[in-house]
Order: sequence, then C-alpha cells, then structure tokens
Amino acid sequence: MFNRVCIIGFGLIGSSLARGIAKHNLAKEIICVDQSRLACDRVLELGLAAKATTHPAEGVKGADLVIIAVPVGAYSAVMAAIGPHLEPRTILTDAGSVKQSVIEAVLPHINNDIRFVPGHPIAGTENSGPDAGFAELFMGRWSILTPLPDTDGDALHDVKTLWESLGAKVEIMDPKRHDLVLGITSHLPHLIAYTVVGTASDLEAHTKDDVIKFSAGGFRDFTRIAASDPVMWRDIFVNNQAAVLEILQRFNEDLTSLQRAIRNGDGQTLEDLFTRTREIRRGVIQAKQEVPPEKK
Amino acid sequence: MFNRVCIIGFGLIGSSLARGIAKHNLAKEIICVDQSRLACDRVLELGLAAKATTHPAEGVKGADLVIIAVPVGAYSAVMAAIGPHLEPRTILTDAGSVKQSVIEAVLPHINNDIRFVPGHPIAGTENSGPDAGFAELFMGRWSILTPLPDTDGDALHDVKTLWESLGAKVEIMDPKRHDLVLGITSHLPHLIAYTVVGTASDLEAHTKDDVIKFSAGGFRDFTRIAASDPVMWRDIFVNNQAAVLEILQRFNEDLTSLQRAIRNGDGQTLEDLFTRTREIRRGVIQAKQEVPPEKK
Repeated sequence: MFNRVCIIGFGLIGSSLARGIAKHNLAKEIICVDQSRLACDRVLELGLAAKATTHPAEGVKGADLVIIAVPVGAYSAVMAAIGPHLEPRTILTDAGSVKQSVIEAVLPHINNDIRFVPGHPIAGTENSGPDAGFAELFMGRWSILTPLPDTDGDALHDVKTLWESLGAKVEIMDPKRHDLVLGITSHLPHLIAYTVVGTASDLEAHTKDDVIKFSAGGFRDFTRIAASDPVMWRDIFVNNQAAVLEILQRFNEDLTSLQRAIRNGDGQTLEDLFTRTREIRRGVIQAKQEVPPEKK
Repeated sequence: MFNRVCIIGFGLIGSSLARGIAKHNLAKEIICVDQSRLACDRVLELGLAAKATTHPAEGVKGADLVIIAVPVGAYSAVMAAIGPHLEPRTILTDAGSVKQSVIEAVLPHINNDIRFVPGHPIAGTENSGPDAGFAELFMGRWSILTPLPDTDGDALHDVKTLWESLGAKVEIMDPKRHDLVLGITSHLPHLIAYTVVGTASDLEAHTKDDVIKFSAGGFRDFTRIAASDPVMWRDIFVNNQAAVLEILQRFNEDLTSLQRAIRNGDGQTLEDLFTRTREIRRGVIQAKQEVPPEKK
C-alpha cells in the first residue's frame, strides 16, 4: 500500500501503528523518528522499524507517508524540522488528540505539494512508550479524520484505507466539532480524574494509605485514567483551551446544583439525575463502545 | 456455621451473599426478605433462598444471623419492622455504604440482647437486582467492620469469619473514619461521574449522539460508574452529607486551580499534577487493588 512510512513519535500510538502496519503488510519499510535515543534503540531492539533516528529531517527522506504521533505541543517544532524535507506528493497525517490547533501548527510549514490529512484515532491505554503498543489497539475503535476543504481526495481515501486495514472504523468530521466532542468524551473526564486523584494525593499520609487500600469503590478507575501520559495531556488542555473551559463551566454549574441538593437533603433531585444518566449508559452499550459487562 | 440466615434486600450484595453462603455451606437455611414481590419470586426461581417474603418481621423469625443489605435510607423502616421480632442473641450485621448514619438508625430499635456488628463490603458492579449477584463478588475484596465500643467479641469474630469464608479480607475501622475514607474513594468518584454524564445528557441531540459514539476516550468509564443503582446512591449522599461536602469542597478548590492553569496556558502546573497522580496509581497497583493492566 505504501512504500516507505515514517512515523514520528514512537509512543503507545506510534508503536501500535508500526506493529499494525507491519502485521498487515501495509508498507515496504517503516522508519522511526523519536527525540529520545533510548526509545530509538528500543524500537530497533523490538524490530519495529528498519531504521530509527532522532533527526526528523533524515527520517522523512523518501517517505510517501508521514505520520505524526507526538504530543500536540510538539507539532510546531516537528513541522519546522520536516517541512522543507518532505517529498512532493507525500501524504502527511497525524494522530493528535486536538485538531484545530494541530492544523494551525502544520499549515505554515507545508505547501500545496504536500497532501495533509489530519486524523485522530480514539484508542489508547494508560501506558506509554514503544513497549506499550500492540497491533490490535485500533481494532473496532473509531478513527476520526478532519480533512480541510482543499484536502486531496486520493490522500483522504488512502489514509481512510490505512485505518480500516488496522481494524478501525473511520468517521469524517469538522475539526471544530471534533474538538468539542472530544472535549466532552475525553478531555473533561481526564481533567476530572486527574483532579480527584490529585485531591486524594494531598491528604495526610495515613488517610492516603487507606484511600489506596480501599480504592476499589470507584477511585481505582480514576487512578487508571489519571495515569495517562502527563506531557501528552498537558498539551491537550493547553491546545483545546476554549472547548475544555466551556465544557468545564457547564460541569461546574451541574456540580454546584448537586452540591446544593446534598446540602439540602434533596434526595429527589439526586435520584432524578442518577436515573437519567442510565440512559446514556444504555446508548454506550448499544453503540458497542463497551465490552459486555464483566463480573469484576 | 449459622443455622438460619435472613438476608434483607436481595439486590447485588444480598443475592451475592446468598450465593456465597450457599456455595460454602455457611448456613443450614437462607431466608429472603425483599420489599418487592417480583424480586422474592425471582429469588425462589433462582433457588437462592428456602423462603422469600415481603414481610421483614416474618423473615427474621428464628434467624441467628440477620444481614441488612438495603439502601441506607431504608434502615429506619426496616429496623422499626424487625426490631421487636429479632431473637435474643441474634447477630445483626449489614452491608451499608455509610456507617455513622446506619448505626444511628439501628441503635434505637435494638436492646442489649441483639449483637450488632456494622459492616461494609467494598465490592460491587454497576448492575442491580437478584440476577446481578454472584458468589465470587467478595473474593479478594475488603470488607470493613466498624464495631461499637460494646460490640460482642464473639459476634464480631463470627461476622469476620463469614466474610473471610467468602474470600474477603476484613479490616476493623472506626465508623467516622470509614465514612471519610469511603467518601473519597467511592462517594466522590460516583458523584463526579454522575455529574459528567449528566452534563453530557443535557447536550443537544446531535452532539449527544456523537458523545455516545466516541465515548471510548474516557467518558465510557464514567458512564459505567454512573449506571449504578440510583436509590442506593441517593441514600448514600444524603446519609454521608458532612464527609461528602467536605471532600467536594477540596475537589472544587483543586479543579478551580486547574481551570486557571488552563486559562493561563500554564502547562507546568498541569504537568506537575499529572505526574504526581501517577504515584497514587502505583500505590493502587502495589496494593493489589487492581487487576494487572490489560490491553484494551
């Protein structure tokens, strides 16, 4: 399908892409670019790429597909480094969790020769680094593409086919809408989980020990979400500021009204909400975005 | 171990207790009390009890162990009904998620003849009803007992042995401390998850559909927590008001400072917190309160 694929950033997503592309024979050659020499060495040890370099400009040479899979705050630097070295007609895509800011960071560095298809796979675990990836990460998951009005149709088709070959379902979406929807489904839950775990980590030592010991009551799930890569998430909040702050405001208003209901012993308001939220859960299960309920 | 065990409330916990007690031969006979005639019929169909009644006073007759497993808001009514009918020397225990208010609700209805051992197993799923239970629910989980200064030593020992026979680990704790610790590890996460899912459910239909479709990014985990039994959780918040409001205040302060960091583009504050929260996660994994990381 592709001749030489250069993946920039070999974390969970980048290394899963490399494994998937190799497994399904979607490219003749995979080139790894990662800013960490240690990560590059590990990638070669794991046999995930034919070549691994810390120099982006060197990595993209001769590549007909370049995939950026670094934290969104690093796009400007990566683009400044690779922009002048991309082959004409190269397809450039990415896996960034925010789309408007990514597009703004990429466009100044490419000309009309480069076929840019912004993308974002909705897949992940709380683990990071080249060892964390696996070829099946995208199986049955959504991958959202947010093409621009002038995005090349063939390139869009090829990137779509790539994701489908890895088992993903592809959705085409406006970048602004992507940032709002993901703000609700991903960025807000992560921010909240980080806050809850942070609040707990400030407790006196004795209580903190008990919190860890008895974490099975719900807190445990929050610690899993709040174990996600710190730099990746720092960049997401800074780069999706407007959408996150807007959603956070709505959340705060809702939390304040629940707080008032608890203070007033207003059980009815609580029960009404707790009943209403079950409908959303049913939607999630029907949309097959959940594995069948396990006995935990 | 026991002669006749009466379980009041055959939801997830009650029906799991019945299954576990039967599986491990811990009682000669299990009696079911549930306010719903339908639930009673289902319990008999499933063979979970020798007898099932909607009349608590009838159910506790001749029982040497009575376990209350109803929402904590229903304790006063249950105790008013069974108090005069408990056999002398009966052991009375419970599975309520709040302990101070439960003790207050129980004490006025029993005399010194009744041996009361307040308890709370830290186990559950988001499913409810007699069909949702399973004998292994308590395996490897904590069960907290919060005896009073005058709690009978033999009764405490027997209840402890019961939980251990079901595979649980037992911790003895002060009721007030229990309510604080569980407020952090369980009540706050549930309140937050209910709020996040509630905020999403207020979105316009088109956006809500997308939120459900792309829920895999973190939101999905919140919908699972927010699918828990509405009445049970309504009662928890009303009955653990003081602890929940205190923890909520700390959470709000922390969230406000993160909100400010996002508004100011202050990546360092975000990254510092996101790094700090990983330590708690390590603690949870070391405490074996988590299954080994799965590839999801």
